[in-house]
Amino acid sequence: MIYLDHAATTPLDPTVLKAMEPYLTEQFGNPSQLYSLGRKARDAVEQARETIAGILNCTPSEIIFTSGGTESCNSAIFGIVTGTMRPHIITTPIEHSSILEPLKKLEKEAYQIDYLNVNEFGEVNLDHLSELIDPTRTAMVSVIYGNNEIGTTQNISSIAQICKEANIPLHTDACQAPGLLNIDVQELGVDAMSLNASKIYGPKGIGLLYLKEGTPFEPQILGGGQENNQRSGTENVAAIVGFAKALELAAQSTHKNKIAGLRDHAIKRLTTEIEGCTLNGHPLKRLAGNINISIDGIEGESILLRLDQKDIYVSTGSACASQSASPSHVLDAIGKTKNEAHSSLRITLGRSTTLEEIDQAIEVVKETVEEIRIII
Amino acid sequence: MIYLDHAATTPLDPTVLKAMEPYLTEQFGNPSQLYSLGRKARDAVEQARETIAGILNCTPSEIIFTSGGTESCNSAIFGIVTGTMRPHIITTPIEHSSILEPLKKLEKEAYQIDYLNVNEFGEVNLDHLSELIDPTRTAMVSVIYGNNEIGTTQNISSIAQICKEANIPLHTDACQAPGLLNIDVQELGVDAMSLNASKIYGPKGIGLLYLKEGTPFEPQILGGGQENNQRSGTENVAAIVGFAKALELAAQSTHKNKIAGLRDHAIKRLTTEIEGCTLNGHPLKRLAGNINISIDGIEGESILLRLDQKDIYVSTGSACASQSASPSHVLDAIGKTKNEAHSSLRITLGRSTTLEEIDQAIEVVKETVEEIRIII
Repeated sequence: MIYLDHAATTPLDPTVLKAMEPYLTEQFGNPSQLYSLGRKARDAVEQARETIAGILNCTPSEIIFTSGGTESCNSAIFGIVTGTMRPHIITTPIEHSSILEPLKKLEKEAYQIDYLNVNEFGEVNLDHLSELIDPTRTAMVSVIYGNNEIGTTQNISSIAQICKEANIPLHTDACQAPGLLNIDVQELGVDAMSLNASKIYGPKGIGLLYLKEGTPFEPQILGGGQENNQRSGTENVAAIVGFAKALELAAQSTHKNKIAGLRDHAIKRLTTEIEGCTLNGHPLKRLAGNINISIDGIEGESILLRLDQKDIYVSTGSACASQSASPSHVLDAIGKTKNEAHSSLRITLGRSTTLEEIDQAIEVVKETVEEIRIII
Repeated sequence: MIYLDHAATTPLDPTVLKAMEPYLTEQFGNPSQLYSLGRKARDAVEQARETIAGILNCTPSEIIFTSGGTESCNSAIFGIVTGTMRPHIITTPIEHSSILEPLKKLEKEAYQIDYLNVNEFGEVNLDHLSELIDPTRTAMVSVIYGNNEIGTTQNISSIAQICKEANIPLHTDACQAPGLLNIDVQELGVDAMSLNASKIYGPKGIGLLYLKEGTPFEPQILGGGQENNQRSGTENVAAIVGFAKALELAAQSTHKNKIAGLRDHAIKRLTTEIEGCTLNGHPLKRLAGNINISIDGIEGESILLRLDQKDIYVSTGSACASQSASPSHVLDAIGKTKNEAHSSLRITLGRSTTLEEIDQAIEVVKETVEEIRIII
């Protein structure tokens, strides 16, 4: 198997699973309980929170564990917007659906949503942000850090600077960032940040929302008052412990440059050896592991299925959108045509990806393109 | 260790963990992806859904996986209330906080919440339900099936009959029910039902909402459109597979009568051998594993801590409320005084509980009571 879809999900690192195991077996206590078995579970959760706070450079109480990236992003939007009680939200047209769908719902409820202009590479226009921001009406700004489809990364600290001057909370969806981009919330200057574990070799079903102290926020899941009253529900202890370990491994990871080197090798081969193959997203400001190409006249799906037959796994769009026939809203936002969008292929590399794997995948892509072009 | 807090959470059954393992290791695919690794993950999710649908006697499409009981209950309330667009909700004062807290929030937004009368045993007054129900204004009724604190079980099918006549959706929080009570949704006649895995020897962080086809519902977590557009977010594949296995084991379990026998033995010993010890909740209509007692003049917590020192784990109230100093809202609702509530102890039995464990725990309770009474 050659797995080249790390932006969709990653395998669980054996070290992470090992860290989780005690909490899947003997340490099964409910962290809310007062007796020692409960306290041990609570200690594990709080230890994980401290580890993560150290990595994000925040205080442990600023971390809210959630069920994943989607819940984190939803909570950031609904929580901060209802917390501020203001009618205007600024975002980008290249956000993940877990930001865009909540905003569509708010739009139906008479909130005003503004979408920042992005250029052909998916870079947010900072002047447009300055224009749109209204210190008296804007509830929040939400900008994706590293785009899950085209890989383009934003200058979050510059965006944060503009937001800070107007005193408007900034949220960033940073699910693709750990191990590849700086996630120090002080250096970034963000007020809220969503992360999840399943994109960084951690378990599925766990995420977090970093929420800077003092940021207006209304909890979205209510009940027993867990997570300092910000998110109720029995803590998913094993997954929380695994998340901390996964984030620790990502923070210590030295694979970024190797991954970026393989990415650049692949981009070069694909765009020079295949006629009509162009890169989507920014040539330089992009996630180390992200390759997104369009190939003239070739359905991305036909390549995906051909690769699948050879046990090579890639994606056509974001994982969450891949069951839908509609072309990527991200490619649309950066001015690509429907044909270009339908002919897109996303290849995302991970820590274990090798040059041999990349070259093997490229050969199959090339063969498929040649075969399809002969038929046409 | 003698674990007698099964209503708070249960250990993971080794068979359940075994079923989960492939999805924590090699089968890590994202179910939304089109290639075979993704399809295998999707197949596992859909197989689990079918298994569960068979147990609940519903169609697979009526099952929405969530992150746990709290999210399920929250989604039932917010989802159905906003789905019906009606201003009136009926519930009981003995619900879990994951029902009561969302309702408190709705009350602040000008919804009208009515609480059904319950008698001294915690049984819901059906006549009161008939009085309160308004076929033109009531959005929904929500009644807990088996109470997590005092163990009292409700006649859900009679409640459902009243709701059905007025054409009002009924939700039941059935998190304590599997393996102990009938959870056939057709026989119960409910429109919505919340379950979670961590109370039935399954993993933490996974639950479900059964939602009868045609029930008005607004999804609460939005994004990639997973769960038939009813709950977005990458599916927690391993946990879903584990949940199905846990529910299967609960459905096949033959431990109910043994557990109820141990419960009755313990209740008899405690209430006859300890002066001033009374049972809270219904003497007959109660969950097989639930013992809830008050002991005159003794703080429940002091017994809990003494038991803890001997590696015996019990609870004073519900797990979610146990970090708060306020006495149980459930004991308050059935007319217990603050002193009675503070002197309450919840002992909840599981499949593996033995007579020896029960008798050992009772001896420590008795000793502690005697010691405290000498000091006083």
